[in-house]
Amino acid sequence: MHRVVIVGCGFAGLFAAKALRHSPVEVVVVDRTNHHLFQPLLYQVATGVLSEGDIAPPIRDVLRRQSNASVVLGEVVDVDVDARELTIDTLGTAIKQPYDSLIVATGASQSYFGHDEYALHAPGMKTIDDALELRGRIFGAFEIAELKPDAAAREPWLTFAVIGAGPTGVELAGQIAELSHRALRANFRHFDPANARVVLLDALDTVLPSYPERLRKRAHRDLERLGVEIRLGTRVTGVDARGLDVEGGRIEARTKIWAAGVQASPLGRLLADRAGATVDRSGRVQVQPDCSLPGHPELFVVGDLMALNSLPGLAEVAMQSGHHAARTITRRLQGQPPRAFHYRDLGTMATIARFRAVVSVGRLQIAGLLGWLMWLVVHVAFMTGFKNRLAALANWAVAFLGHGRRQRTITKQQVFARVDALESSPAKAA
Amino acid sequence: MHRVVIVGCGFAGLFAAKALRHSPVEVVVVDRTNHHLFQPLLYQVATGVLSEGDIAPPIRDVLRRQSNASVVLGEVVDVDVDARELTIDTLGTAIKQPYDSLIVATGASQSYFGHDEYALHAPGMKTIDDALELRGRIFGAFEIAELKPDAAAREPWLTFAVIGAGPTGVELAGQIAELSHRALRANFRHFDPANARVVLLDALDTVLPSYPERLRKRAHRDLERLGVEIRLGTRVTGVDARGLDVEGGRIEARTKIWAAGVQASPLGRLLADRAGATVDRSGRVQVQPDCSLPGHPELFVVGDLMALNSLPGLAEVAMQSGHHAARTITRRLQGQPPRAFHYRDLGTMATIARFRAVVSVGRLQIAGLLGWLMWLVVHVAFMTGFKNRLAALANWAVAFLGHGRRQRTITKQQVFARVDALESSPAKAA
Repeated sequence: MHRVVIVGCGFAGLFAAKALRHSPVEVVVVDRTNHHLFQPLLYQVATGVLSEGDIAPPIRDVLRRQSNASVVLGEVVDVDVDARELTIDTLGTAIKQPYDSLIVATGASQSYFGHDEYALHAPGMKTIDDALELRGRIFGAFEIAELKPDAAAREPWLTFAVIGAGPTGVELAGQIAELSHRALRANFRHFDPANARVVLLDALDTVLPSYPERLRKRAHRDLERLGVEIRLGTRVTGVDARGLDVEGGRIEARTKIWAAGVQASPLGRLLADRAGATVDRSGRVQVQPDCSLPGHPELFVVGDLMALNSLPGLAEVAMQSGHHAARTITRRLQGQPPRAFHYRDLGTMATIARFRAVVSVGRLQIAGLLGWLMWLVVHVAFMTGFKNRLAALANWAVAFLGHGRRQRTITKQQVFARVDALESSPAKAA
Repeated sequence: MHRVVIVGCGFAGLFAAKALRHSPVEVVVVDRTNHHLFQPLLYQVATGVLSEGDIAPPIRDVLRRQSNASVVLGEVVDVDVDARELTIDTLGTAIKQPYDSLIVATGASQSYFGHDEYALHAPGMKTIDDALELRGRIFGAFEIAELKPDAAAREPWLTFAVIGAGPTGVELAGQIAELSHRALRANFRHFDPANARVVLLDALDTVLPSYPERLRKRAHRDLERLGVEIRLGTRVTGVDARGLDVEGGRIEARTKIWAAGVQASPLGRLLADRAGATVDRSGRVQVQPDCSLPGHPELFVVGDLMALNSLPGLAEVAMQSGHHAARTITRRLQGQPPRAFHYRDLGTMATIARFRAVVSVGRLQIAGLLGWLMWLVVHVAFMTGFKNRLAALANWAVAFLGHGRRQRTITKQQVFARVDALESSPAKAA
């Protein structure tokens, strides 16, 4: 039977797998983790609204009823496009995985623009591990502030810098501000968490650059009303354990989060090397109109790793391109010609805080409560599985109608190692 | 104002703090973690039913409305009983904490009976970190089994050994069996998870030794019906990465869990040294009838760390003794004499699987569905906070009425390091 191997099980990979449900093919899904990830809600795991299980269902549980699909836990380390075979590192053991068609959907990670040394001090937010690390750092910073004897020593621990004012940065900054004003109320005795400083920085001169001007202004205003300090046109020139250097100054901030730019998965460059593909500056692979590689009709690149018609790195593009590649394979098996991928723009949305979101759909621009309700409906609709919807709604009820954050547990792996590193710097006495 | 310092915020510490809510005292709660822990449900975090946040609410959130209480994140490293002062390590910085009354409630951890080298291979289950580590190992073992080419290589990965057949061991063994039979159904393509082998071992000749004979027999039968292999009167003589040695044989089991015996917190021996207290063989501190130390009426030991009238290490004893110590302090401030602590035995219960539990209350012995419903009511009633009750009920509905486990996410910290260690042993080629 024709074997389709799908590498990566984010939105693109999962939608490709599901689209092959009734096709006469064998589907093998390869992923480095045991879970699919509802990435747009990672910021809620980082800020204690949702648990990791709420947005990261096991891939094999999601696909359990799809009898033509199996799942391999492993990382692709090489591809032989002539032999049509992948080499996969499965927890230390290399195995070979032949394919007839290959769909590569390994997405993107954050880019530090050549400064990878920032990563230790300003983690990004692309994986569950990232989000749990950030959760530990954010709630841990408040814990440490409570231990400091005087306000001056507390201040850098109560300063949170979010670098990058795209949707991820905006949503995180808004959530941290809301956390400090509402969820942590009355939790501390030596300071008022509402005085925490949340700084949102971007080198560009606007928040949410991909949104229409009216919504950008609205988001900017809503964030400022939440108490977020927005510094635009500000380039970050250095990041260390104690804070960051920006053009024209220094911000002492123990907690820094990197949300500024993405780079494509290294599999893009591997395909360039092995299959003669062309990659753009951020490592994305140029594809044909049907999402396949030039000269390799059996090899598709979809989702955030795909460069096609300047399409943005959105969940919706990933879902649709994954689905398209799968349909193209099915059509080919039926003797039909490939079709070009046409992205149906269903709009974009970003939450600022509870009851406030901005939504852009075609010419429609919606903000405030109505936008937030649309955000809620869309996110519930797209969550994977009834179980996760139910639980997310329960957690959201607690977070948005009540004032709590149910998922604030700090584990030893997350915060303590970092604190040691931070505290052993000269500021230890502080 | 009279300052009461409470060390440890498990059931004993939390109930002590709450009992001082309306007393004219200042309360300082010291804990190594940011959370209170509903320890009897840890096994459900380890087996993917509940998230860590469901059973580990932040201490400062639980006590946020108690204005006379504050929380210090740190570990007590010394006590000066003459100066009435603790030394606390707060994330690397030592601070002094004076007290007028001291309640020590730091509980117990697992005991390997002199074989601490077993810990790496057979973790216990006393903290959130333990439970998440076990979650990674349990679900990770099934992932690895799926990667193995033949049944012989899979077998040790599909063998789970639980050492100790007290309530923790019984509940864990039951949950793993149920997991393999129901929750993981149809998740794997190369084997049937229902064939996983769950071995429950104990050196004694019965499960649940503290229960009446009828309930022990019932639990034994129910476990066997679930497919658990019970090996009683079997002493473990060795534990390594690949399995364990038992009297008269060897069990190849990649996943081992230690639930056999507890040792008291090291603070017990510190108190013996500094305040002349007497500790028993497992490190518990002998207290006066009112839970105070001989010669130190201002110093109380409660919960699992307390040795008094052979009371068992139960949540209920911890709650009542913590409450009693707090009441004794309040009464003393009112000029009233201390009273002896009398434990009101409210019974014990252990779940075997969904819809099956054993409950012993005085002369009443209940098993099966009725016992399970009592378990449900009691655990919901004692959960800390409405938010956690709501969420736990939602997760239980999914796990017990449906067939799912919502919290199966494996993070990099949990399983991968262990797998590397296991796989680099001679069995790597397997």
